[in-house]
Amino acid sequence: MEHAIQPLIDMALQEDIGPGDITTDYLIDEFAKGEAYITAKEDLIVAGFDVAERVFKTLDPCMDIFRSFRDGDEVKNGDIVMEIKGKMRALLKGERTALNFLQRLSGIATHVRSYVNELGETRVRLVDTRKTIPGHRVLEKYAVRVGGAFNHRMALYDGVLIKDNHIAACGGIEKAVSTLRRHVSHLVKIEVEVSDMKELEDALAAKADVIMLDNMNLDQIAEAVKVVGGRALVEVSGSVTRDRLIPLAMAGVDIISSGALTHQARAVDLSMRIR
Amino acid sequence: MEHAIQPLIDMALQEDIGPGDITTDYLIDEFAKGEAYITAKEDLIVAGFDVAERVFKTLDPCMDIFRSFRDGDEVKNGDIVMEIKGKMRALLKGERTALNFLQRLSGIATHVRSYVNELGETRVRLVDTRKTIPGHRVLEKYAVRVGGAFNHRMALYDGVLIKDNHIAACGGIEKAVSTLRRHVSHLVKIEVEVSDMKELEDALAAKADVIMLDNMNLDQIAEAVKVVGGRALVEVSGSVTRDRLIPLAMAGVDIISSGALTHQARAVDLSMRIR
Amino acid sequence: MEHAIQPLIDMALQEDIGPGDITTDYLIDEFAKGEAYITAKEDLIVAGFDVAERVFKTLDPCMDIFRSFRDGDEVKNGDIVMEIKGKMRALLKGERTALNFLQRLSGIATHVRSYVNELGETRVRLVDTRKTIPGHRVLEKYAVRVGGAFNHRMALYDGVLIKDNHIAACGGIEKAVSTLRRHVSHLVKIEVEVSDMKELEDALAAKADVIMLDNMNLDQIAEAVKVVGGRALVEVSGSVTRDRLIPLAMAGVDIISSGALTHQARAVDLSMRIR
Amino acid sequence: MEHAIQPLIDMALQEDIGPGDITTDYLIDEFAKGEAYITAKEDLIVAGFDVAERVFKTLDPCMDIFRSFRDGDEVKNGDIVMEIKGKMRALLKGERTALNFLQRLSGIATHVRSYVNELGETRVRLVDTRKTIPGHRVLEKYAVRVGGAFNHRMALYDGVLIKDNHIAACGGIEKAVSTLRRHVSHLVKIEVEVSDMKELEDALAAKADVIMLDNMNLDQIAEAVKVVGGRALVEVSGSVTRDRLIPLAMAGVDIISSGALTHQARAVDLSMRIR
Amino acid sequence: MEHAIQPLIDMALQEDIGPGDITTDYLIDEFAKGEAYITAKEDLIVAGFDVAERVFKTLDPCMDIFRSFRDGDEVKNGDIVMEIKGKMRALLKGERTALNFLQRLSGIATHVRSYVNELGETRVRLVDTRKTIPGHRVLEKYAVRVGGAFNHRMALYDGVLIKDNHIAACGGIEKAVSTLRRHVSHLVKIEVEVSDMKELEDALAAKADVIMLDNMNLDQIAEAVKVVGGRALVEVSGSVTRDRLIPLAMAGVDIISSGALTHQARAVDLSMRIR
Amino acid sequence: MEHAIQPLIDMALQEDIGPGDITTDYLIDEFAKGEAYITAKEDLIVAGFDVAERVFKTLDPCMDIFRSFRDGDEVKNGDIVMEIKGKMRALLKGERTALNFLQRLSGIATHVRSYVNELGETRVRLVDTRKTIPGHRVLEKYAVRVGGAFNHRMALYDGVLIKDNHIAACGGIEKAVSTLRRHVSHLVKIEVEVSDMKELEDALAAKADVIMLDNMNLDQIAEAVKVVGGRALVEVSGSVTRDRLIPLAMAGVDIISSGALTHQARAVDLSMRIR
Repeated sequence: MEHAIQPLIDMALQEDIGPGDITTDYLIDEFAKGEAYITAKEDLIVAGFDVAERVFKTLDPCMDIFRSFRDGDEVKNGDIVMEIKGKMRALLKGERTALNFLQRLSGIATHVRSYVNELGETRVRLVDTRKTIPGHRVLEKYAVRVGGAFNHRMALYDGVLIKDNHIAACGGIEKAVSTLRRHVSHLVKIEVEVSDMKELEDALAAKADVIMLDNMNLDQIAEAVKVVGGRALVEVSGSVTRDRLIPLAMAGVDIISSGALTHQARAVDLSMRIR
Repeated sequence: MEHAIQPLIDMALQEDIGPGDITTDYLIDEFAKGEAYITAKEDLIVAGFDVAERVFKTLDPCMDIFRSFRDGDEVKNGDIVMEIKGKMRALLKGERTALNFLQRLSGIATHVRSYVNELGETRVRLVDTRKTIPGHRVLEKYAVRVGGAFNHRMALYDGVLIKDNHIAACGGIEKAVSTLRRHVSHLVKIEVEVSDMKELEDALAAKADVIMLDNMNLDQIAEAVKVVGGRALVEVSGSVTRDRLIPLAMAGVDIISSGALTHQARAVDLSMRIR
Repeated sequence: MEHAIQPLIDMALQEDIGPGDITTDYLIDEFAKGEAYITAKEDLIVAGFDVAERVFKTLDPCMDIFRSFRDGDEVKNGDIVMEIKGKMRALLKGERTALNFLQRLSGIATHVRSYVNELGETRVRLVDTRKTIPGHRVLEKYAVRVGGAFNHRMALYDGVLIKDNHIAACGGIEKAVSTLRRHVSHLVKIEVEVSDMKELEDALAAKADVIMLDNMNLDQIAEAVKVVGGRALVEVSGSVTRDRLIPLAMAGVDIISSGALTHQARAVDLSMRIR
Repeated sequence: MEHAIQPLIDMALQEDIGPGDITTDYLIDEFAKGEAYITAKEDLIVAGFDVAERVFKTLDPCMDIFRSFRDGDEVKNGDIVMEIKGKMRALLKGERTALNFLQRLSGIATHVRSYVNELGETRVRLVDTRKTIPGHRVLEKYAVRVGGAFNHRMALYDGVLIKDNHIAACGGIEKAVSTLRRHVSHLVKIEVEVSDMKELEDALAAKADVIMLDNMNLDQIAEAVKVVGGRALVEVSGSVTRDRLIPLAMAGVDIISSGALTHQARAVDLSMRIR
Repeated sequence: MEHAIQPLIDMALQEDIGPGDITTDYLIDEFAKGEAYITAKEDLIVAGFDVAERVFKTLDPCMDIFRSFRDGDEVKNGDIVMEIKGKMRALLKGERTALNFLQRLSGIATHVRSYVNELGETRVRLVDTRKTIPGHRVLEKYAVRVGGAFNHRMALYDGVLIKDNHIAACGGIEKAVSTLRRHVSHLVKIEVEVSDMKELEDALAAKADVIMLDNMNLDQIAEAVKVVGGRALVEVSGSVTRDRLIPLAMAGVDIISSGALTHQARAVDLSMRIR
Repeated sequence: MEHAIQPLIDMALQEDIGPGDITTDYLIDEFAKGEAYITAKEDLIVAGFDVAERVFKTLDPCMDIFRSFRDGDEVKNGDIVMEIKGKMRALLKGERTALNFLQRLSGIATHVRSYVNELGETRVRLVDTRKTIPGHRVLEKYAVRVGGAFNHRMALYDGVLIKDNHIAACGGIEKAVSTLRRHVSHLVKIEVEVSDMKELEDALAAKADVIMLDNMNLDQIAEAVKVVGGRALVEVSGSVTRDRLIPLAMAGVDIISSGALTHQARAVDLSMRIR
């Protein structure tokens, strides 16, 4: 995650500060020091300490930062999660950007954790999708892991997912799978999206590594799992809500993917105060 | 909005495509053409057509694009909002990024519209805050306007908001306001955050242009509005929920600012299909 | 100002050094240390120490820098203003870029100071314009403040200035002002450029916050000030030379804006020597 | 010059427009078209048409542009130099940036032309220095050529100029010249700065290609030219004012370099009007 | 490959042209047109047409380009491979950069093809490594495919390869594989590098998807293939020369990876002439 | 070389690590430290220590690095050339990129050294060309110097080389040389490519500083050298192989330029091990 996120942080600070913080620059002496602390204003799972820290250190490399928790910890309303000491101007200028990251990432982690808790000890694997805020993919997928779920492919470049349009364009599932098997790296698995039993049989015949059941009901899903019989991993996707998790898991699928893990997460409340 | 968002679009496409879409590049001929349409999967206020269009045109400058609505229109579940014709590879590669923008921005517009409708014909001005996704400030503030609300300052550089830390650091409200009045451009108004009647009096004495009432209850707010008596604009901020809007408006404030307009918005559902 | 200027400094160093300083790289050992001092070669108001320092520290982060003055100080011909100790190569490579910044910014500060001194104790506010070197806006507006004058809006995004073309395009001053009042942030003031008494009356009726008198003679200006009668700030612009300052101030305007503060400033002379 | 200047133009437009031109975006319809013309407000030598054109075309690629003159032409007060037709918003947003470039570059060309005219038919070569606005080197050196003078080296990478510090650091002129002769490309000439006759003799002995006489008076210069006797080119530098040009030329030097060509140029006046 | 390579092309043109091609800019009229053709100067497999085309179109978007072959074709000494018509300046400025790309990429394709031909109809899969020129990974891996071989993982982000240091750091192969199996995307396969039979057994026990035999001799390799017995893919790596290909293939491995495909390729000879 | 190469290093690390090293990030603790050493796996001339060091320090600024040799030293198979201590993750992530640079640059230095040794004590100057990997020009020309040869011009901007197309376009050699002599900096030498005796005479008459003999045989070259008679430097280019070096030198040319110095160099073998 580390140094790849610096451009996003630079973009964010440029966006919020630009030619200058006209309130702070005229009121606060450039050498003045201060201490700030960030407090949770609701119960949450915290995520994003590294990003918040980088925001402040970008503005003042000598900033001292103390974390009272680690990413993934449960934090209670009122808990202080982070203390920051350094130039007062940097504290005031970095506050909003640091909080915007922290609130979004903790929001995702908190949201994901509730799904994970719902699933409990089942062996099913809950994974995210590519439905993330543009430019924030790496961060949001990190927050998903912090929340306790797992990642689907990162992007279009690190995993094959054959959808209906691909199949139509190249003349059938078998053709599509064999073409890709021939061309992509031997470290990349091939997943095929199927919407009925005929396509499922084709995908199995083509020796797909993973099969995604698209918009099937629970009975169809259970049937599909039986047909697959361990010959491929079975993923279910589409309209995954919290209360469908257990039924889906009980239907025997290996993987449940849910865009809601990221795109339905809401920012949680954290605030910063200067001492 | 126009050309300033290209870097974000480039970053988003780089993030999702990077060295290549390994499914599409091996299955779809580079010269193949296709037609796609984007459909609303729930009722929503649409926002972000320009961004979605730029995403596809970045990948294929010759893409033809038809919009059935305009930003701000109410769209029903099932409505086709956009048709796109051009290179099949570009359609498939741009799909997720275009939708991610459209879903987030339409989500904000939809969320904001519900607040605006709640307020109805009251004269109060509902405005956003700086609680936006890092790097997406310009877009999210645009979506707020599409939804029917207004923008507070864009960033730290285009409006003065004096908070408690600024006041403490420079010895009182009067000192802070006069220092800023002297230094900032004569086109910039000065807003002061106050938390009690004493500070309110100080801010009025200092001739603040706008006064922000921080975390006051309705009675205090009504009292404050009376004290101000038109000598400054009155903004109220903090814990603004939808059902507090009318009471706040009736308390006589000029401006209600709400971070929830952006940070509590959820993505709405839109999907793309290839014909 | 701080960290937003680093891209300009990087661009400037890339421009002057590029693939290498072929004189220095072959003659000076990479570990050799040196001491340099920068001397004023004429009387001047110094501005730009931070930029000069960043230039050298970009090339050698361990550079030790001592300043004998602060931005805004009057410096006499022969005064040493800055001493720099560090890698000899970095001293030689950074010299020209650091001086180019320092000479331009001190040139502006010196030029502005002479205007400010001319105005003396009058209550009028002397402000700059957007007539600055492309890419150097933040720096040049900073130098204007160092010289003792003030800033008009930073750019097109942080203040409204309605000109004749805007008025023509939307059907009158009242329409233009009310449209903008409705849409822009409540922290942004609205200025209208007027060229005769009719337009002045319209702008007042529209409750413009600031009125810019464009190309009026002194009599017209005095008349306009009387008409406004404190209902708006009055700015005068166009062909502002040093000897018109006092007459303009005496005509009662609040603000005098002058592009000459920046675009007619000449570089002042400073040079660097190695000990 | 062409495509290398695009990043500077992008930086300049970002600086002036950033998140949006709040006056224009709310008042002017996005599809409205307009025509503008740029007029000289004083007699000048015009330079920078390509840059001005690129500014407008960056904002509206379909802009139509007509030039009534070519770079280097003498233009009279009142002459229309350029007409631009396209989107009204692009005209209004690009105006200040295009003019800022045009005023600065034409200012340099005009200033340089007066020096060149002063020199008349003498065979001496008038050249610029590296005293240019950071980030604008290529443009300013272009304007110098438009004005009729010539360029010294572009930067530290394309010509050798050995100064006192280099000489001190490596033990004498001969050592410095031979070291560089051995290492730099055979297409790069070697120039040595000398401040007295002893150093001049050393430079000649070392077979320097060009000798720069630093801060010598006219008698010394004439003497130096005689001593060199055609064995090297002779450049004179330092405190070159317009009235010293002819005496310097008559002293027999080959090259006169003058930082004043760029850093003492003032912006000339051009303005844009919408029809 | 498409639009992700533009930054590298921009960097390359900036590197070679920078502030200007001083020969061409002074000798060739800016509107002059010309026709050029690129000829093979030896027998080769051509690769990189798209890149070469982009180089010229970056300098002159209206360039007309005709290709006589397609990437992967065998081209004979003397064959014209590409014709380019457009601005003469753009032809001369783009020539070296376009050729440098074409010579390198065709060099790789030619080199790879000779390995592929050596292998003939064997079922073994010949793949590249991450030993590519920094910044050119996507292009060089593309050239490998053009030559007829296949790609290993693109980078550290799209495939798991557990090496000895990873194993040592986390306490054994089983631990490493199970940790990764748990965390990485279900679309990513896991490969383990083993150097003896004990490690091989551990990797099989851990259910590695692919096993890399590191520096084993042919007997050991044959033995390893037998032990694996189809439970995983077997890759062999290290010191793969052309004449070891057939013996390795006959030893029964599935995959042969060779850094030499890229890092031992030499540029092939192509030249450009203007008509 | 220093700070201009950072963008290439950033691009290379982004290319290889991108969103993360999925093997290392999940197996290695983020605070774990390690020691690595880089060993030569064949006899070679080492080049590129600074680049390799920057790669590791970009990932971990606190990395300790020890070099056992200096760029240009002869290193034997088995010699440890560099030791690196710091964060284990940074060691593993930087390994391939650092080695890819080191192997390429040492490969060039080693290849060049063999040419230089072949030439021995002759006074001829062996120089490179612009046939370098796009984006790596500065580094590869540095490696050429490390190997003991010299640089031709860096790029199109720092030396004039008039080729046949230039001559055709402007009407003869004399015209081309005089045009350029008039326009380019007085520090830039002018080289003319000639292919027969007629052109040679023209180039001499035009007082070219350097004459490049294009594709002449040894007899013609010897004849040309005699004709030139010291009036210009004589460079020979085209099909320069190692065994033609001595004959060319004996023909009396001043400069031999060879693209093969860079584009025929192969990567040499170095590997990294963790202790």
